[in-house]
Amino acid sequence: MHYVFSKYTEGLRSSAVRDILKLTQGRSIISFAGGLPAEDFFPLEAVQEAFERVFRQGKGALQYGLTEGYTPLREAICRRMAAKAIEVRPDHMLITTGSQQAIDLLTRVFLSPGDTVLVENPTYLAALQIFQASGVQVVGVEADGDGMLPDDLLAKLERHAAKLVYVTPTFANPTGKVWSRERRLALLEACKPRNVLILEDDPYGDIRFDPEGDYPPIFSLDRHPDDCGVVYTSTFSKTVVPALRTGWVIGDSRVIQMMTRAKQAADLHSSTLDQQALHQLLTHFDLDAHIRIIRAEYERRMQRMKALLSEARFADLRWREPAGGMFFWVELPEAIDATALLQHAVQQGVAFVPGRDFYAEQPRANTLRLNFTHTPPELVGVGMDRLAAALEAYAQEAIG
Amino acid sequence: MHYVFSKYTEGLRSSAVRDILKLTQGRSIISFAGGLPAEDFFPLEAVQEAFERVFRQGKGALQYGLTEGYTPLREAICRRMAAKAIEVRPDHMLITTGSQQAIDLLTRVFLSPGDTVLVENPTYLAALQIFQASGVQVVGVEADGDGMLPDDLLAKLERHAAKLVYVTPTFANPTGKVWSRERRLALLEACKPRNVLILEDDPYGDIRFDPEGDYPPIFSLDRHPDDCGVVYTSTFSKTVVPALRTGWVIGDSRVIQMMTRAKQAADLHSSTLDQQALHQLLTHFDLDAHIRIIRAEYERRMQRMKALLSEARFADLRWREPAGGMFFWVELPEAIDATALLQHAVQQGVAFVPGRDFYAEQPRANTLRLNFTHTPPELVGVGMDRLAAALEAYAQEAIG
Repeated sequence: MHYVFSKYTEGLRSSAVRDILKLTQGRSIISFAGGLPAEDFFPLEAVQEAFERVFRQGKGALQYGLTEGYTPLREAICRRMAAKAIEVRPDHMLITTGSQQAIDLLTRVFLSPGDTVLVENPTYLAALQIFQASGVQVVGVEADGDGMLPDDLLAKLERHAAKLVYVTPTFANPTGKVWSRERRLALLEACKPRNVLILEDDPYGDIRFDPEGDYPPIFSLDRHPDDCGVVYTSTFSKTVVPALRTGWVIGDSRVIQMMTRAKQAADLHSSTLDQQALHQLLTHFDLDAHIRIIRAEYERRMQRMKALLSEARFADLRWREPAGGMFFWVELPEAIDATALLQHAVQQGVAFVPGRDFYAEQPRANTLRLNFTHTPPELVGVGMDRLAAALEAYAQEAIG
Repeated sequence: MHYVFSKYTEGLRSSAVRDILKLTQGRSIISFAGGLPAEDFFPLEAVQEAFERVFRQGKGALQYGLTEGYTPLREAICRRMAAKAIEVRPDHMLITTGSQQAIDLLTRVFLSPGDTVLVENPTYLAALQIFQASGVQVVGVEADGDGMLPDDLLAKLERHAAKLVYVTPTFANPTGKVWSRERRLALLEACKPRNVLILEDDPYGDIRFDPEGDYPPIFSLDRHPDDCGVVYTSTFSKTVVPALRTGWVIGDSRVIQMMTRAKQAADLHSSTLDQQALHQLLTHFDLDAHIRIIRAEYERRMQRMKALLSEARFADLRWREPAGGMFFWVELPEAIDATALLQHAVQQGVAFVPGRDFYAEQPRANTLRLNFTHTPPELVGVGMDRLAAALEAYAQEAIG
C-alpha cells in the first residue's frame, strides 16, 4: 500500500516535548523538559477515595454520559470559577480531555484554512502545532514582560484581519511571564469591538507564588458571559493529577454548543468515570488547601533552580524569575544553538526543551525552557551540573 | 459578538441519537434509541478491583502518559487480537477515546475535503457525521444481507476514485447485518490493488449469538500488518463498560504513527488511569467468560423483542433477526415517516432512532432502529405496547 495522507498532515509536526519525553523514558536522564507536576504531591488517597465513592453509587456510574460532561462536575467547576470572578452556568461549559482538546475543538469550529491567529512569540508549542496543522496563518505579536504591546497588537489586528488571539496570560508557557491587568484590558478592548475572539489558556493560573498579584482572568474582565469575547480553558492536570486528562472550556453558549457538537463527532465524550471521580474529589477534598501546599513546594523548587542559575558558571545565561507556573525561560549567548546543545545534554544525562519550536515566526535558536516542578530537589543540583558540563562540551566542540 | 464559525461546522450536524438521549434523560420514557449496553451486567466489582490495583502501584500511576497509550494495555490487547487471527505488535496500535475517536483521527490524517469515502447505505450515523463535517464526499454502495455487492463496489471505486471504504461488517449499526466471508474477501481484493484503504469498525464483534459463525475480521484476511490495506478499530465500551471511553485502532505502523501525531495535537492522550485499570482488568478478570454471559443475556433480550415484533399487531413491519450486536433494523410501511412517528412515540413514552440519519444518500424515511440490549426485559413489553399505540395514533392522524 502507498498511503497518501491528508492536507492536514502536511502541517502536522510531532511535538518536540513529547518526543523528548519518549526518548528519555526508562533512561537515567534528569529531565527538565516536560511540563510535569511533582508526583510526590499527587493526592493519591483523595483520588482513590473519590473513585470509591463513585463505585459505591452502583453500576449506573459506568454507563455512557452526556457530551457536555457530567453535570454535577460542571456545576462544581462553576462554583470554583466564581471564586475567580468568572460567573458562568453549566451551559457555558464543556468538559474536555485536557485543555489541549479545548484548543483543538475551538480551532475546528472557529478557524478555517487561511484564517489568521495572533499569538505571543514564543507561545505554547502544542497550540502552534494545532494551528499550523489546520492551515491557519499564525502571526506573532511583539511583547514585553507585561504582555503583548498594544501598538503592535492593533497594527496586526488590522493588517491581518485576525479571527482569534491565543494567549496564556498567567505564567505563560514557555516564558513564565504574567500579564499586567492593564495589558489584559488592552487586549480585550482591542479585540471585542473588532469581533476578534480571545482564547485564554490558563493551565497554570493556580500555581502562583504571589497570592496578592492582581492577575484577573481576561474572561472575568469581559463580564458578558452571553455576549462573550473570550473563551477560557483550564485543566485539573496541574492541580489534581494529569492521568485523569480532565479540562474544561467556558465561553458564550453559542460557541460552547458548537464545540460540543464537534466533540460529539470527535469522541462522544470524555471518560465519565474520571469526571464523576473529580466531582467527588471537589466535594470531599479541600483542593484549595492542596493547591496551597503545591504552590509552596513549587516556589521552593523554583528558588532552588534560581539559586543554581545564579551561580557564576551560568553567568552568560539570561532569564527572569517566574511569578508562578512551571518554567524558567533561558536565553543562551547568541552563538549557542539549543538544539545542538541538547545532544550534548542528553549525553551528559540531562534534558530540556530547545526554544525554537515555541516560536510562530523568527525562532530564536539560543533559547531553552527548563521545568522546575518535576525533578526531585535532591537531583536538581546534579541536573544543573550536567547542564554546565553540556555547555562546556558544546564550547569545546565549537573551538575544536 | 458575532461569531463566524469555520467551514468545518457547515457540515457538522448534531447526532440524532445523542439528541434523543438528551431529551429522554430524567423522563420516564422507555428508550430503544441509544446503543447502550445493559447496566445490570456491568462488571462493577472487577472494575473497582482493577482501579484498586492501579492505586496500589503508587503515585506514578497518576502522571502523564504516552500518546500511543499505556504499553502494557496495548500488549494485552495484542494478545486478545491474536485470538481473532489478528497478529500485531503494540506499534501497530493506538489507544483512543472510544472507537469514535479512531474514526475521527483517521479521517483527519487520511482524508482531505473533496475526497470520496464509500460506505454501506445505511451506515453508522456518527461516522457519516465525521465525514460530512470534514467536507468528504460520501457515496453509498448497494448491499444485500451478506454485505456490499461486489459489482456496485467495483463500479463506484472506479467512478469516484475513492480513498477509503468504511464498513462495520460484523453486526452492523444500524442494520444488525453480518457480512459473509466471501464478501469480506471481495472487498479486500477490490480495494488493496487499487490502493484504497478499508476502515473496519468492529464495536460489536464480540456480541455474537452464533459462536460458530465464520466472520473473520477483514484485517485478519489481509495478513500483512506492515503493508496493510485495513485499519481496524474496536472498543471496550460494549464488553466492559462505556464510562472508561477506551477504544483502540490497529493498522500499518505508518498510519498509526500519523494518527498518533494527530492525537497528540487533539488531546495529548486518553485517560491513563482508565487505561491502567483496563490493563489490570484484562490481567485479573476473565473477560471472555464475562462476554459469554452478556452474549447469552443479549440473545435472550433479542429473542424477547423478536417475539414481540412477530405479533400480529406489527405484521406490517419488516425486519430480520440479527446474529449479534445490539439492534433491530425495522422497515415500516412506505407511507409512514419514522421521524413523525417518533413524536407520537415520545408522547406515548417510548423512543427509537428514525432511520433517516443513517443514510449517506437517498434516505428512506420509513425505517427505524430499535436497541434490544439496554431496556430491562420486564419493560420491553410495555415499550412495544407504546410503540403499537404510537403507530395507532399515527394512523389516526393520517386518516383525520
